[in-house]
Amino acid sequence: MSDLLIKNARPMGEATADILIRNGRIAAIGAGIEAEGVVTEDAGGAIAIPGLVDAHTHLDKSLLGFPWYRNEVGPRLIDKIDNERKVKRDYGLDAHVQSMRQSLQSVSYGTTLIRSHVDVDTDQGVIAIEGVMETRRQLAGVVEIEIVAFPQSGLMRRPGTLELLDRAMAMGADLVGGLDPCGMDRDPKGHLDAIFALAEKYGRGIDIHLHESAELGAFSMEMIFERIRAHSMQGKVAVSHAFCLGDPDWTMTQGLIDTCAELDVPILTTAPPSRDAPSLKRLHAAGVRFGAGVDGFRDTWGPYGNGDMLERAMLLGMKNNLRRDDEVAMALNVCTTGGAAVMERSDHALVAGGRGDVVLLAGETLAEAVVTHAPRKLVVTAGNIAARDGKSLRERP
Amino acid sequence: MSDLLIKNARPMGEATADILIRNGRIAAIGAGIEAEGVVTEDAGGAIAIPGLVDAHTHLDKSLLGFPWYRNEVGPRLIDKIDNERKVKRDYGLDAHVQSMRQSLQSVSYGTTLIRSHVDVDTDQGVIAIEGVMETRRQLAGVVEIEIVAFPQSGLMRRPGTLELLDRAMAMGADLVGGLDPCGMDRDPKGHLDAIFALAEKYGRGIDIHLHESAELGAFSMEMIFERIRAHSMQGKVAVSHAFCLGDPDWTMTQGLIDTCAELDVPILTTAPPSRDAPSLKRLHAAGVRFGAGVDGFRDTWGPYGNGDMLERAMLLGMKNNLRRDDEVAMALNVCTTGGAAVMERSDHALVAGGRGDVVLLAGETLAEAVVTHAPRKLVVTAGNIAARDGKSLRERP
Ligand SMILES: [Zn+2]
Ligand SMILES: [Zn+2]
Repeated sequence: MSDLLIKNARPMGEATADILIRNGRIAAIGAGIEAEGVVTEDAGGAIAIPGLVDAHTHLDKSLLGFPWYRNEVGPRLIDKIDNERKVKRDYGLDAHVQSMRQSLQSVSYGTTLIRSHVDVDTDQGVIAIEGVMETRRQLAGVVEIEIVAFPQSGLMRRPGTLELLDRAMAMGADLVGGLDPCGMDRDPKGHLDAIFALAEKYGRGIDIHLHESAELGAFSMEMIFERIRAHSMQGKVAVSHAFCLGDPDWTMTQGLIDTCAELDVPILTTAPPSRDAPSLKRLHAAGVRFGAGVDGFRDTWGPYGNGDMLERAMLLGMKNNLRRDDEVAMALNVCTTGGAAVMERSDHALVAGGRGDVVLLAGETLAEAVVTHAPRKLVVTAGNIAARDGKSLRERP
Repeated sequence: MSDLLIKNARPMGEATADILIRNGRIAAIGAGIEAEGVVTEDAGGAIAIPGLVDAHTHLDKSLLGFPWYRNEVGPRLIDKIDNERKVKRDYGLDAHVQSMRQSLQSVSYGTTLIRSHVDVDTDQGVIAIEGVMETRRQLAGVVEIEIVAFPQSGLMRRPGTLELLDRAMAMGADLVGGLDPCGMDRDPKGHLDAIFALAEKYGRGIDIHLHESAELGAFSMEMIFERIRAHSMQGKVAVSHAFCLGDPDWTMTQGLIDTCAELDVPILTTAPPSRDAPSLKRLHAAGVRFGAGVDGFRDTWGPYGNGDMLERAMLLGMKNNLRRDDEVAMALNVCTTGGAAVMERSDHALVAGGRGDVVLLAGETLAEAVVTHAPRKLVVTAGNIAARDGKSLRERP
């Protein structure tokens, strides 16, 4: 929580202004701000945006720091899940070390706020939760981390998992996770009843991975809607991926999208090029909160990605066929303020009173900054300088 | 056409070997090759691949070298086409200068072979053809350029265009282009009859842009097939984009794909995240020649892209949900040997007798090289060093 004066920035690519941060929050934005004794940075005309927000990732999964992982995994979902548990054992993967590596890499790209799903299963119990919680403690003031207790290997199909999720919530996880109640767990009623009850017990929200497509996904969405109503959890249940919302059946998807708006169900996407995915413009039009994330990367699931949410904004723009400058800026907004709104940080914006998270970007317009995603000039978290010229100030372990 | 010895490379990511190029072609690959008096480069264990092949782009369109273009164009196809002609006039865009800029940027990324569509229309006549032909002359030995005379603004709907296409072919364009005979020109019979007759007159092939989707695209494909049979142009007619081949209707698309194989119709893709697109594995299984390109970039059509075919291999891998190392290598192959095969360069491979085009990449495996697409260590065209450490030796105008 520091004071900082950034001179000569262009907030959101507009006219040059100074940004004064006091006690970690934006105190003023305008021309010719002076503040005696406050550390001052000259932005040199760079664009300023709020901190990037990675609202869907897996800090415990990446293999950063290890040699390249040769992926020879089978084609089914269960092949990937079983393979991952095996690799974790073989490598002796330490969730704390891996989450430090990934978090600091993300910080170097300008991310100041992360929602991470963290595996909880009967192999490793809640060790990964402990590891990511330790990272959260060590990186306080550098990047804010929200933790979802995530039953990656299934809930109903692996007895003992629910008790471990309960323990994770007691330890301080922020949200209860879920995963494909039909496709993965083969018991949508059992799965959803269990995670809603757990969320209610701890007074916490839910973020559920839903890869199920078409009518199957719509069915699971409807079962989620029923329980939001029954538990009065409006605004507290997010759905990640939600491929079914990108289904070509416009009528079916519009009904689902309208209900997401009615029940305030935020949607999170990774903008996957290979799948139908929720449309940015349709969610915006309906008023649905919409954020984005890099998902897992350089892990046993797949090789792509690097943690850069500015590159993700580009992929989101390409996915949604956004070509105009004002449209590309909308994609960027999903990767900053949009994701923060999903995480109930309503003050994540370059306005007086907003969070003191600022990233300086190269480029003439926001669209150019997104398309080139050049190394970030400066990353500021709550008034603290966290990265400069593409490098995190704190070194990766 | 030079001699060059590359020591300590790892061809296709395999065991270390030396590569000897003589008179612009690969003379030998193996351990411990010596060649007195031949210029020698030490690859230092870097991966070697054949030159990258951008088999679908538009060298005359990019705005490289100009300040960022703020895209405020309307949503319809015709808005984009009309806007582009206007911007070309307003900017006084010189196709020779722009194609020099783009070609040398592509060379810096390791591209040694390009197929470029070049606009021919009643506004600018064949000026762009002349400009790109001049670039081809100036860059001989640096990058090989094939030119498609492309009726971007329509053929039947703009009288006089056919005569200009004829002139372009007489001047030395390599192929006749076409564009959405239904969707754009509203006269599929007229459009296709005209371009097939022109191709026959000059004994040249065809490469047609086909954005039409679903049944409309299938209809145009069938009309193309009929004319290939009638003119005995098997192997001479490529289809670019061919979104209809990525339609969810598996039966319809399999019939089209099988006919592409039967008539040897190569397909070219840009791996668009926003559209259904031809499946790499299905085309491979059917034995259809398959290449890729960056399409236009940083132009009035849209902001994305930079000319990097290694990044395009990543997008192609993501589009096709390829995660295993051997699958990512398939995506890379489409962007090298695959595109070359579409352009009838059957010898574009790291084998004795192959073209002396070699690119050195950072990375432990081909998949890592694709995913990171770090600056290219060395780019060799026909035995000449064309770029080093991500920089073209010849400067951009
Ligand atoms: Zn996930
Ligand atoms: Zn094109």
